[in-house]
Amino acid sequence: MLAELIQLMQPAIDAEMQQVISNPQFQSYPGLEPILRYHLGRENQSGQGKKIRPLMVLLSAAAPGVDWRSALPSAAAVELLHNFSLIHDDIEDSSPLRRGHETVWKKWGIPLAINAGDAMFTLSFLALERLSETVGPEAALRSMQVLAQASLHLTCGQHLDISNEGERLIELDAYWSMIAGKTAALLSACMRLGAIAGGATDEQERLLARFGAELGMAFQAWDDWLGIWGDAVETGKSTKSDLIAGKKTLPVVYALQKPGRFYDRWMRGGILPDEVDELSAWLAEDGAQKFTENEVARLTAQAIDSLHMSGFENKYVQGLQELALSLLKRRK
Amino acid sequence: MLAELIQLMQPAIDAEMQQVISNPQFQSYPGLEPILRYHLGRENQSGQGKKIRPLMVLLSAAAPGVDWRSALPSAAAVELLHNFSLIHDDIEDSSPLRRGHETVWKKWGIPLAINAGDAMFTLSFLALERLSETVGPEAALRSMQVLAQASLHLTCGQHLDISNEGERLIELDAYWSMIAGKTAALLSACMRLGAIAGGATDEQERLLARFGAELGMAFQAWDDWLGIWGDAVETGKSTKSDLIAGKKTLPVVYALQKPGRFYDRWMRGGILPDEVDELSAWLAEDGAQKFTENEVARLTAQAIDSLHMSGFENKYVQGLQELALSLLKRRK
Repeated sequence: MLAELIQLMQPAIDAEMQQVISNPQFQSYPGLEPILRYHLGRENQSGQGKKIRPLMVLLSAAAPGVDWRSALPSAAAVELLHNFSLIHDDIEDSSPLRRGHETVWKKWGIPLAINAGDAMFTLSFLALERLSETVGPEAALRSMQVLAQASLHLTCGQHLDISNEGERLIELDAYWSMIAGKTAALLSACMRLGAIAGGATDEQERLLARFGAELGMAFQAWDDWLGIWGDAVETGKSTKSDLIAGKKTLPVVYALQKPGRFYDRWMRGGILPDEVDELSAWLAEDGAQKFTENEVARLTAQAIDSLHMSGFENKYVQGLQELALSLLKRRK
Repeated sequence: MLAELIQLMQPAIDAEMQQVISNPQFQSYPGLEPILRYHLGRENQSGQGKKIRPLMVLLSAAAPGVDWRSALPSAAAVELLHNFSLIHDDIEDSSPLRRGHETVWKKWGIPLAINAGDAMFTLSFLALERLSETVGPEAALRSMQVLAQASLHLTCGQHLDISNEGERLIELDAYWSMIAGKTAALLSACMRLGAIAGGATDEQERLLARFGAELGMAFQAWDDWLGIWGDAVETGKSTKSDLIAGKKTLPVVYALQKPGRFYDRWMRGGILPDEVDELSAWLAEDGAQKFTENEVARLTAQAIDSLHMSGFENKYVQGLQELALSLLKRRK
């Protein structure tokens, strides 16, 4: 079911994005558009570029019964917003590579990369212009507000993430706040934008948005699990990089709540590759693995619950459920 | 006339901005809002923080006869957009100081500064939300579109500026394109946003926007003149820094069109402080000073013309004219 919908929707998403990226303003300023296309092209080439966010928009719009094509402007908007955040995140994290290719700042330098991210950010708002035609001006206005609120939440989460970088220890509360902004806010906005385009009621919109937020939290928690216990070959990451990188992922944050061998070792910093197996085992023995799995299961169940409480029962809602479960069953 | 209007309007602009900056989302993410307030506070303290852009919005809105207070959301939006661009520009230019204070990136580091700029950008869109109440949803939607178009033009101009940094030589066309994006686009948007809030006709809106664009070009050309021949004491800059900094300002770009002594010296690069007087004199003798003055005069006349062609004759239009002339008579 989901696979068929994806096959139908992805070419339409690509076409919509092509249209937005080909902004007439770029004609008088050659050089900027190719940077945006380079970034989007690398994202698309890889298997990871599944365009989960625009798919969520379209499925959410179709759930109440409208033609999903009318929500294409919103689908393009969220994908552009996501990619803006990747361009800036890569600078902020000094990441030289993304999906095996040079990041924008690595290729063009920090000044042009900051500016290209700003352009991508702007395009995400401009993408919503066409929603006035496909749905109506009221939906376009509300969608711009939703997109802007999600953007602000994103920057809040990112601020917390960067600020915490120097810390060895963060609280569980801070962890949830961070991923609420960094991951859940945009997935929630995807569902809300779809609901707006689809003409859902306020209550349905609220439930669909909650599905998005809960799915986002579950998704991130599972990503954190994979970062420690995922098969390194499958993830394609350098072996168990999250512990070596000192990332404050959910299992780590959980384990650091109480003193003990993991706490003592972690606080000394600089974890080496040959310590990773032992530390992963400690985390598992101390309950951090189980805790993370329980959180993923709890959030997933809540998400599916919210989805069904919205009251829609059709192939699009089924598609959303499949999408949710596939994200949470992935091994990489 | 203008002074009275400024006295009336500036506290209202400040209050509107305070309201926008106090976004409820920040309450769960302390740390980000203080960065934004630091930047805005430094801008406000100095005499330069005259808030020209929001004033233009309010005067433009009042010209057709509506209460300028209804345009306050748009006024806050343009000031926030301008300040977003300053935060990112300072990173892109590696400027350690702004108005005598440390820039955001210098104080908090590049990652947090990029992100704070992104937050300010988002707030500029969120500022327009309240326009739905003060004017109406249609005006709010159109204003968001105008703001986004101006933002994209800004990033286009900035791209050109950064790309040209390594070049010693640029064409006059490239100069005008650059300042059309970097300076004129936002001033044009200010007038357009005011016109929308004020209920001007399409033709009036077009003429007011043209006034803004032409004023922006004149303003930048005059800034370039001051950067070479302005009294260094009055400008508060290090003596004649624009030639030393190798800035491709209008007089320089004009002079480089033909071979000669200035061309030869400029292309060798690295102009020293004790050469500046002679090079300034060469530029004047070769007609670059006169050319720049003529361009300023021509663009100013066009701007004033566009303003009056809009057909409004009242104290607000008078205020706009005064504002335009004051900007172009300034010695610093």
